[in-house]
This record gives sequence, structure tokens and C-alpha cells, in this order.
Amino acid sequence: MKLYSYFRSSAAYRVRIALNLKGLSYEYVPVHLLRDGGEQLKPDYRQINPDGIVPTLIDDEQHAIQQSLAIIEYLEETHPEPPLLPKALADRAHVRALALQVACEIHPLNNLRVLKYVKHTLGVDDAAKDAWYRHWVESGFESLEQRLANDPRTGKLCYGDTPTIADLCLVPQVFNANRFKIDTTRYPTIQRISDYASQLDAFAKAAPGAQPDSE
Amino acid sequence: MKLYSYFRSSAAYRVRIALNLKGLSYEYVPVHLLRDGGEQLKPDYRQINPDGIVPTLIDDEQHAIQQSLAIIEYLEETHPEPPLLPKALADRAHVRALALQVACEIHPLNNLRVLKYVKHTLGVDDAAKDAWYRHWVESGFESLEQRLANDPRTGKLCYGDTPTIADLCLVPQVFNANRFKIDTTRYPTIQRISDYASQLDAFAKAAPGAQPDSE
Repeated sequence: MKLYSYFRSSAAYRVRIALNLKGLSYEYVPVHLLRDGGEQLKPDYRQINPDGIVPTLIDDEQHAIQQSLAIIEYLEETHPEPPLLPKALADRAHVRALALQVACEIHPLNNLRVLKYVKHTLGVDDAAKDAWYRHWVESGFESLEQRLANDPRTGKLCYGDTPTIADLCLVPQVFNANRFKIDTTRYPTIQRISDYASQLDAFAKAAPGAQPDSE
Repeated sequence: MKLYSYFRSSAAYRVRIALNLKGLSYEYVPVHLLRDGGEQLKPDYRQINPDGIVPTLIDDEQHAIQQSLAIIEYLEETHPEPPLLPKALADRAHVRALALQVACEIHPLNNLRVLKYVKHTLGVDDAAKDAWYRHWVESGFESLEQRLANDPRTGKLCYGDTPTIADLCLVPQVFNANRFKIDTTRYPTIQRISDYASQLDAFAKAAPGAQPDSE
């Protein structure tokens, strides 16, 4: 397998954790999102990812799979052990909803291309751009904190004590928030889960600082 | 089952199509996103959906499921027929990636609360707000068009001739785009698929104009 990745991309980070948890080795292909106007926007890369975003997974040299959650569900179906989703159907929905809350309500509003548009095209100042970032991360974390803190299924991790796709989305989002100086200690359940997960081998090896293209 | 919905919500629209395709009857509970400051933000509703967004599905009076794609995967697992995902694993990934491209790259940037923030908090004028909307819908549709037009798996619908979760995401996004006066005829494959799907009974009955809270 080949993963097109950028060390700091939250979406690529999710997939790296999944690959590590599944014990799958892969070739790391760095795509630098800033250098030279963005390598993800070059025609070659757009052949396999028309959106010009990371990650992309190539399996069996035939299929390019885009979208981190589609890649993770694919890995779950092709390599079921260890499972990253619970067995019970209502619990699977719970875990998927937690993952999608990060992937659809928080992350799309604070990725690089959106922040660039807010700053350069809407032309707001840095303070307004930072407030934009904070607003979506903080409101997202507030509701996520409430859900995790009040749900009896929450354990050391988002669902019990073994990693699920919810943790795969949460940890990169917390990393991203800390990089932008959000005080995540205000979300004690999120912080506790993220701290615990980050020490697990599969998560630690997937962290931005551990990637070959880390700066 | 009970679906908390708003007639114009793209995310609720996706779930309504899924329920119709599966032949499931449900109680429609309207949540008016504009009236009285937004019914979705009231404490009662936030008990079942802390994010204050629609849709929420209640099954068996116990579990509240948030996030449209988590709900749809839940319906797929609890009511497998007719399937909304292909059998082959690489094709499932392809269909999920198409759905997520709409759900993560387009829709989160143009829903009501984001447009409100862009206009009122960032304080840009209507022209800049409209350009924001157009930018994300058009760039998303451009890459989606390219993917659909070039993939041999595309048929009358996004994947062959029977509905998948990709169509459930595409049709509401096209409806939304037309409402905001985007010229979707520039994306002939998207337009053709959306036109075909919209005539199918399950899609027609899920359309905003056919809902009890339609205005």
C-alpha cells in the first residue's frame, strides 16, 4: 500500500493511525501542502485525487481511494482485525457519529485551504481569522465533550478502552487545536482520552513529529 | 422510528431518501432552523443532539443517532435490503469517497450556521458571502464531475444504475446549489445523475417540497 500524506494533515494522521492499528506496512509518499504553491494541486497528484487534498491510499496498484473515512472503512473491511468499530449496531452508529462530528463539523472549517480563503479572499485580519478557527473548534469540542462525558459507553477512549474510528478522528483534531493554541484542558474528557490514546504505540508512530516529512 | 428534520436541510434530505429506499415508515418531527432563533438550539433538542443540528434519528426509543452518514450506515446495517453500498470492497470505498466528498468538502462550508458566521461575524457583504458559497460548491462540483465523468463505474447514477449513498448526498447538494442559483448544467454528469435520481419515487418523496414542514 502507498499513502500520500502530509505530516501535519489531520485527515492523513487519522489514516496513519488506522494503518498502524491494523499492523499494515505502507510506503509513505509525502505531498507538501505549502511548498511550490502546494504539491497537492499539481496535475500528477490530481490524477489520483481530483480534489487536490490528502490523504490518498493506493492499494493493489489499481485503486486510488480518497477521503480519510472512506479509506478507514475500507481498511476495516479488508483487514477486520483488530476491529475499529464495535459489534453492536447502535454502538457502531454512536462511534461513527462521534467520528463524523469531528470530520464534518469541525475539521472542514479549519483546514488550510479554508483558512487561506478566510484570510486572503474574504480579506479579514489575523484576529478575525483566529476567532473563526477558535469558534468552530471550541463549539465542536463543547458538544463533543458533553456527549463523551455523559455517555456510559465512554471509557479510557471514546468507546470503551480500545481504539475506534472516533479516537482516530479525535486525537488529530486535539493535536491541531493545540498547535493553534486552543486551551483543550477546558474539555477534560476529550483531553483525558487524547492523552491516553497518544501514548499508544499506533498513535505515537502516526504523530506528525514521527513522519519522514516532519519539519 | 422518529426523524427530526427540516425540509430544506441537505443532511436530513439524505436520510429521508435512505428511509424511503429501505421502505421504512417513520414519524416526521419538524425542527425549524430559523423560527424563534432556531428550534435546533433549544435545550430540549440539544438533549438528543448536542451540536444543535439536524437530522437526528431515534430508533427503538432508546438511541438518538446524530450525523446523517452515521444514520445511513446504521440503516444499511439494520435493514440491508435494498443495499445502498456495492458488494466489492474497492467499490464500497469509491462510493463512500464520493459521498464524503460532498459531506466533508462541500456541505460543511455552505450550511446555514456557516453562512451566518461569514455574513454577520466576519461582516462581509452579500457579494462576498455569495462568492464564498459559489467557490466551495463550484470547486467541489468540478472535481466531482471529473471523477464521475471519468469512472467506468458511473451509470445512470453515481455507481451503476441503482441508488447508493453517493446519490443520497449528491441530489440534496444539487438541490441546494440550484436554490442558490448555481448553474449546475456546467457539470453535465452531475446534472444528468441528479435529474434521473430525482424522478425516482424514493427521492421525489424525500424532496423538500414534499415535506410536512415545507413552506
